[in-house]
Amino acid sequence: MCANKKSSAYEPLNENGAIALAKKLQLFEENSQLTCNEIGDGNLNLVFKVKNIESGESIIIKQALPYAKVVGESWPLTLDRSRIETNALLKQAEFVPQYVPRVFYSDEALAITIMEDLSHLQIARAALIEGNDLPLLSQHIGEFLAKTLFYTSDYGLNQHYKKTLVKQFINPDLCKITEDLVFTDPFFNHNTNDYEQELQQDVEKIWEDQTLKLETAKLKQLFLTKAEALVHGDLHTGSIFADENETKVIDPEFAYFGPIGFDVGQVFANLLFNVLARNPEHQGVIYNHIETTWDVFVTEFSNAWNKDALEIFAKVDGYLEHVLTEIFEEAVGFAGCEIIRRTIGLAHVADLDTIEPFERRIATKQVALSLGSELIKNRKSITSPQQFKEYVKQTAVSVN
Amino acid sequence: MCANKKSSAYEPLNENGAIALAKKLQLFEENSQLTCNEIGDGNLNLVFKVKNIESGESIIIKQALPYAKVVGESWPLTLDRSRIETNALLKQAEFVPQYVPRVFYSDEALAITIMEDLSHLQIARAALIEGNDLPLLSQHIGEFLAKTLFYTSDYGLNQHYKKTLVKQFINPDLCKITEDLVFTDPFFNHNTNDYEQELQQDVEKIWEDQTLKLETAKLKQLFLTKAEALVHGDLHTGSIFADENETKVIDPEFAYFGPIGFDVGQVFANLLFNVLARNPEHQGVIYNHIETTWDVFVTEFSNAWNKDALEIFAKVDGYLEHVLTEIFEEAVGFAGCEIIRRTIGLAHVADLDTIEPFERRIATKQVALSLGSELIKNRKSITSPQQFKEYVKQTAVSVN
Repeated sequence: MCANKKSSAYEPLNENGAIALAKKLQLFEENSQLTCNEIGDGNLNLVFKVKNIESGESIIIKQALPYAKVVGESWPLTLDRSRIETNALLKQAEFVPQYVPRVFYSDEALAITIMEDLSHLQIARAALIEGNDLPLLSQHIGEFLAKTLFYTSDYGLNQHYKKTLVKQFINPDLCKITEDLVFTDPFFNHNTNDYEQELQQDVEKIWEDQTLKLETAKLKQLFLTKAEALVHGDLHTGSIFADENETKVIDPEFAYFGPIGFDVGQVFANLLFNVLARNPEHQGVIYNHIETTWDVFVTEFSNAWNKDALEIFAKVDGYLEHVLTEIFEEAVGFAGCEIIRRTIGLAHVADLDTIEPFERRIATKQVALSLGSELIKNRKSITSPQQFKEYVKQTAVSVN
Repeated sequence: MCANKKSSAYEPLNENGAIALAKKLQLFEENSQLTCNEIGDGNLNLVFKVKNIESGESIIIKQALPYAKVVGESWPLTLDRSRIETNALLKQAEFVPQYVPRVFYSDEALAITIMEDLSHLQIARAALIEGNDLPLLSQHIGEFLAKTLFYTSDYGLNQHYKKTLVKQFINPDLCKITEDLVFTDPFFNHNTNDYEQELQQDVEKIWEDQTLKLETAKLKQLFLTKAEALVHGDLHTGSIFADENETKVIDPEFAYFGPIGFDVGQVFANLLFNVLARNPEHQGVIYNHIETTWDVFVTEFSNAWNKDALEIFAKVDGYLEHVLTEIFEEAVGFAGCEIIRRTIGLAHVADLDTIEPFERRIATKQVALSLGSELIKNRKSITSPQQFKEYVKQTAVSVN
């Protein structure tokens, strides 16, 4: 790994540097009065918001750091992820410009991407936790998934050109994070795992479940080998900005050519966390989001297929149905992996971690672990998003 | 495609140039008397044999041509295949040096690979057609397959490094040839197809068989997306030099990261051509080769897995068995595609084309087409190489 090798031109910006860069690039009118704040959560990237005091216009300058601050400077992280993020945003904008931030400028050596400021929107996870139900979220995400994935797959893209894109998006360092934290560590007694001691028995059940491990191995192998489409690679509700009218998918630094079901499954899983965290009477709207995500995905993917498929076999009876069935099955399995890893692995979700009181939080996490296992093991017999509801119900009964 | 863009340094060698190059590189002792013959079949490459008249020592200088002569200079073909071939030979030699020609030198700009001369051996296809049964062929090929494929897969190779190899072996031009000629054209009325008019009815049956086309679409998608291991990509019996002691696999210019079953299936299919071409009393030895190829593959792959697997899930009960089952199933399907395309597509095999008299040739090709279709459609229920025999028998009965 050359992950921590800084390129010679690289140095981290500060707020004055960010303003100077914005001026040099003439991103604001001449003689604008600019202010700048670093607003990142600071784990992986610097995020500068540069604003014209008079007009209120603003932009975001995002710069990758050569390490992950979450564990100090000792976890090096390739700056190449900035190139991946910029190129993924530009590629996605070819198909769904309405759902991604506009990119104004990028610099590979400095690991900088300058883009549209989206701070008028809210992170979808936070909105959903607050009970703001984001009525268009699933409509938009279903379309985002269908179009970005279809048009970068061998079904909808020139197959020769697709291979040059596969090469461009080889992303070993970021994929390794997913391979370890999503598909491996939570299934073994590994020191990156992080969970309440009250879950110890449930966690050990996972570690001892040979069927679960076999099915997880198969899903990990799909993640490692199935170069189906340019996936976002980290499409949880924390990677989505939204309000009641608008939805923007951000942070595709994990993008690479992987299984379509991976993105779909992460959306399912992160909506399911929100379901689990809610009181039963408020769950319906999130179940509806899950169903709408899939329904819109199917409709938009099928439309694109019928209109724009380049693969000559696309016209063969049953092929589209087969592809959709396989995507759903894999999405269910990937959702199961995401649910387990966000409950006991290194990176948690606020939906579960903010549940009060503590006893309810633990009980909900027990349901999550059991649900995740069931989704992984039974993914072949789960064929519609409506079944998630039954599975959650059954699991809750069996755990409590 | 920039396939026909000659790099500025490139020019084709002639025989004097080949001798001069060998001298410059000091590949022979000083003052050796060298002769040179161009011995290629001349379709895609120049092949010079340079020989020391006194000692008899010789080497091969292989140079890629920027076009395929088979259809005149109008079919451009990337010189990059020379880089792929050299790198594949070097990679394979890390695991099975005994089964690949030694590489002495390569030059990317000139698209040249200089390697061991294997002309003391015979092309396996020709040997088998002559009735020379090459007793160690399947033992060696089974081991070649197991080791080259296991140790370049995510099971046996560092998964981070594997991704850099995937990038190095992105091979769009040569993959496109396979995608078109193996997985597409023979299943549609395409002008690259080439078959006797007596087969018209059988060919139309293929074009009209929607189930067959759906299953072929799935196999093509695996070829397009499943980056499982560094496959040879063109492992027919014409890519194997052998005698009764030695086996060498040559010409890996189609190498890329694809499904393990693709290489295995091409071996199966090309042995099956030889079976079909033989009188029944001489078929047993070739059926044995098919079974031995698979048995040795399973044994060697399993040994490597148990000894050297880097994937932590490799120890999970049932995972190795699952992987082997999937490889076999896919190999059966890929074998079916190879059988159909070699019978009615652009590139034929001598095993079938030299069958006399004409009526028997046609009848055998009818069996081949039916067998190929059955293997594709029934690949999930064919679980051992012993079943090939039944399928050939049944197909022969149903066709005649």
